[in-house]
Amino acid sequence: MNPSFEALARQLADVGRHCYERGWALGTSGNFSAVVRKEPLTLAITTSGVDKGLLESSHIVEIDARGRVLQGSGTPSAEATLHLAIVRARGAGAVLHTHSIWSTILSDAATDGGVTIEGYEMLKGLGGVRTHEHRERLPVIENTQDWTAAAPEIETMLRKHPEAHGFLIRRHGLYTWGKDLAEAKRHIEILEFLFEAMGRKRGLAWQP
Amino acid sequence: MNPSFEALARQLADVGRHCYERGWALGTSGNFSAVVRKEPLTLAITTSGVDKGLLESSHIVEIDARGRVLQGSGTPSAEATLHLAIVRARGAGAVLHTHSIWSTILSDAATDGGVTIEGYEMLKGLGGVRTHEHRERLPVIENTQDWTAAAPEIETMLRKHPEAHGFLIRRHGLYTWGKDLAEAKRHIEILEFLFEAMGRKRGLAWQP
Amino acid sequence: MNPSFEALARQLADVGRHCYERGWALGTSGNFSAVVRKEPLTLAITTSGVDKGLLESSHIVEIDARGRVLQGSGTPSAEATLHLAIVRARGAGAVLHTHSIWSTILSDAATDGGVTIEGYEMLKGLGGVRTHEHRERLPVIENTQDWTAAAPEIETMLRKHPEAHGFLIRRHGLYTWGKDLAEAKRHIEILEFLFEAMGRKRGLAWQP
Amino acid sequence: MNPSFEALARQLADVGRHCYERGWALGTSGNFSAVVRKEPLTLAITTSGVDKGLLESSHIVEIDARGRVLQGSGTPSAEATLHLAIVRARGAGAVLHTHSIWSTILSDAATDGGVTIEGYEMLKGLGGVRTHEHRERLPVIENTQDWTAAAPEIETMLRKHPEAHGFLIRRHGLYTWGKDLAEAKRHIEILEFLFEAMGRKRGLAWQP
Repeated sequence: MNPSFEALARQLADVGRHCYERGWALGTSGNFSAVVRKEPLTLAITTSGVDKGLLESSHIVEIDARGRVLQGSGTPSAEATLHLAIVRARGAGAVLHTHSIWSTILSDAATDGGVTIEGYEMLKGLGGVRTHEHRERLPVIENTQDWTAAAPEIETMLRKHPEAHGFLIRRHGLYTWGKDLAEAKRHIEILEFLFEAMGRKRGLAWQP
Repeated sequence: MNPSFEALARQLADVGRHCYERGWALGTSGNFSAVVRKEPLTLAITTSGVDKGLLESSHIVEIDARGRVLQGSGTPSAEATLHLAIVRARGAGAVLHTHSIWSTILSDAATDGGVTIEGYEMLKGLGGVRTHEHRERLPVIENTQDWTAAAPEIETMLRKHPEAHGFLIRRHGLYTWGKDLAEAKRHIEILEFLFEAMGRKRGLAWQP
Repeated sequence: MNPSFEALARQLADVGRHCYERGWALGTSGNFSAVVRKEPLTLAITTSGVDKGLLESSHIVEIDARGRVLQGSGTPSAEATLHLAIVRARGAGAVLHTHSIWSTILSDAATDGGVTIEGYEMLKGLGGVRTHEHRERLPVIENTQDWTAAAPEIETMLRKHPEAHGFLIRRHGLYTWGKDLAEAKRHIEILEFLFEAMGRKRGLAWQP
Repeated sequence: MNPSFEALARQLADVGRHCYERGWALGTSGNFSAVVRKEPLTLAITTSGVDKGLLESSHIVEIDARGRVLQGSGTPSAEATLHLAIVRARGAGAVLHTHSIWSTILSDAATDGGVTIEGYEMLKGLGGVRTHEHRERLPVIENTQDWTAAAPEIETMLRKHPEAHGFLIRRHGLYTWGKDLAEAKRHIEILEFLFEAMGRKRGLAWQP
């Protein structure tokens, strides 16, 4: 039996406050979702404009596959389109989006369309990865304010990189997902750890 | 109906302890205020010399437009003049001032009178900003111990930069504000995040 | 009288959550053990795949000297072989393994088979060290996914470095131990502190 | 009326756990004292070997001017000699000693016998300092394991630098003090903040 909307809303609020504590969702940044039902698809998702340090289950709404609110009050995140596209393309059970210092810096420094991470034990925390010799390639896409218009480009990118466990938006942050919320939370922690390790190791050779 | 002085004092104490936890108001640094009434203007403001990790509503006083204590006990912050000038110039409902590592470093490194931040998604957390393409220019002013004498200069600076969401005092810290306390707190988090991202990215090319 | 399995399981869960809070065991990384009995040897050890931020005593199992579960449910960490080898070689009462940013970076930068730390007061926190003039040499070994096959190499390394208080696995993390769990926890904190101090001091001259 | 030994022991335990949380007293490092009586002098001081994250008032003893335990159980810190010397030389009411990353790094980098901090607003958090134009000179002394033998040198150094609010021991940490425990805690926070700001700004040009 799947968790109910109410249970997912509580869990999303916990994950959101956790990301805030770690400094990955300051201000009202970040948005978080989990699949409530697959057929027809409905999603529990954070509403916009909420201080993530004060996130509670009442700040989560249930939306349908077109982004319309079915339950709860508030406006779903303006990036709901992205969450829905990821769920469809990857069969994800949860999608998490954070704004961290190191994902912002690495996304900005990437010059060949992506960030490549290879040879770290922590990579084994990504779903299906069984060795540190794994090579993870995270695409970096340009930022926009019109994710509805950008949806086809996102879907193309997701198809072109079927093995990526996440992607970065330039000077913006990280999207990652998982089969359920626990896996998506683990992916956030693994990828943020690796961004920080790479960022600190690489040094600060580029300039603004 | 506006929050009462008592409610604002509790909220200011919460914000102050939060800033302390984040390392933005260590020692007894930092001061925080919120407008209680507009006509005539009165302000709830932290008293000086208080450990912000132990800040409670009893450490907040209500002052009038000339800085005289109307309610509560203790000496209002020596920078009350700045808070009052900002409230008048910007119509702000709350003013927050923090001393963080990165604002100290960036304010010191600025050579052209300001810090410019451009192209980051996090900028959208600033009131009225709708795109990451926003260009935020934060003036940097010189430090002084006589803010009463400096008030005209501050007012000139605020008029010259009508769109700035904050300003820096060199080797001292950040002032930001908002229509209410929640917005001002969001501005602190957004600007501190951006200072850290820029500081880490830029590297450490300058010397003391 | 030794602590019971139940008491050790509770203490291991406390240490695990603590390491998670410090950022040394993000995702499901890290594993932790303590000796329950010496003759015949049994070990309380974390099971694999657990979020260390949610670690509880029910996530700890008791295993024998061949890694078979005697008590509790779940699969012992795939690195149980390493824990057992360290207990045998060093007579340790507890073994802790963490994945931190700085141990990852320093292990990667080591070019002569080890990391040498010398002249810091904090070294006195290592068991038996009475002066900051101590020279600690931590071997760095290559990462693998087959610790059973690597066990002889590990045992050779431990014999070759009888005075080392820990070792690093390249791009993976730290193993350290102690006569009991309190000492092993102290060793984690001492070594992580020294890694961070050295990493920050050394700068970021190497490239990925 | 002065606080009793019991009250000071509780306050010292609070300060110690706070320093541990901030990462300034990891392992069992750091020691903390406060004057109980002036005539004849007695001091409440932490005992050695205690995990500062678990520090409680039962880990504090009262000692006399020659370091003998008058009340409580445990061995006073091996650096009690330093605490007593500082109390005598400065008339301090409390002495705090921490081991932080940045004090370790800055103490190591100092080549002219001290660290100079000048022009920062945060300096005003030091007792008696009324302007950011203050120039704070913190002596750096060499580390030793025999503080009883080194006591005359420490006393000479304290006399030579009558205005210093603290001093550093090379690759070891910071000593600071205050008229009471609240002021000493403030001094720790102010100096640690300034060390971090200077360390980050200065960059990492020196090598181990």
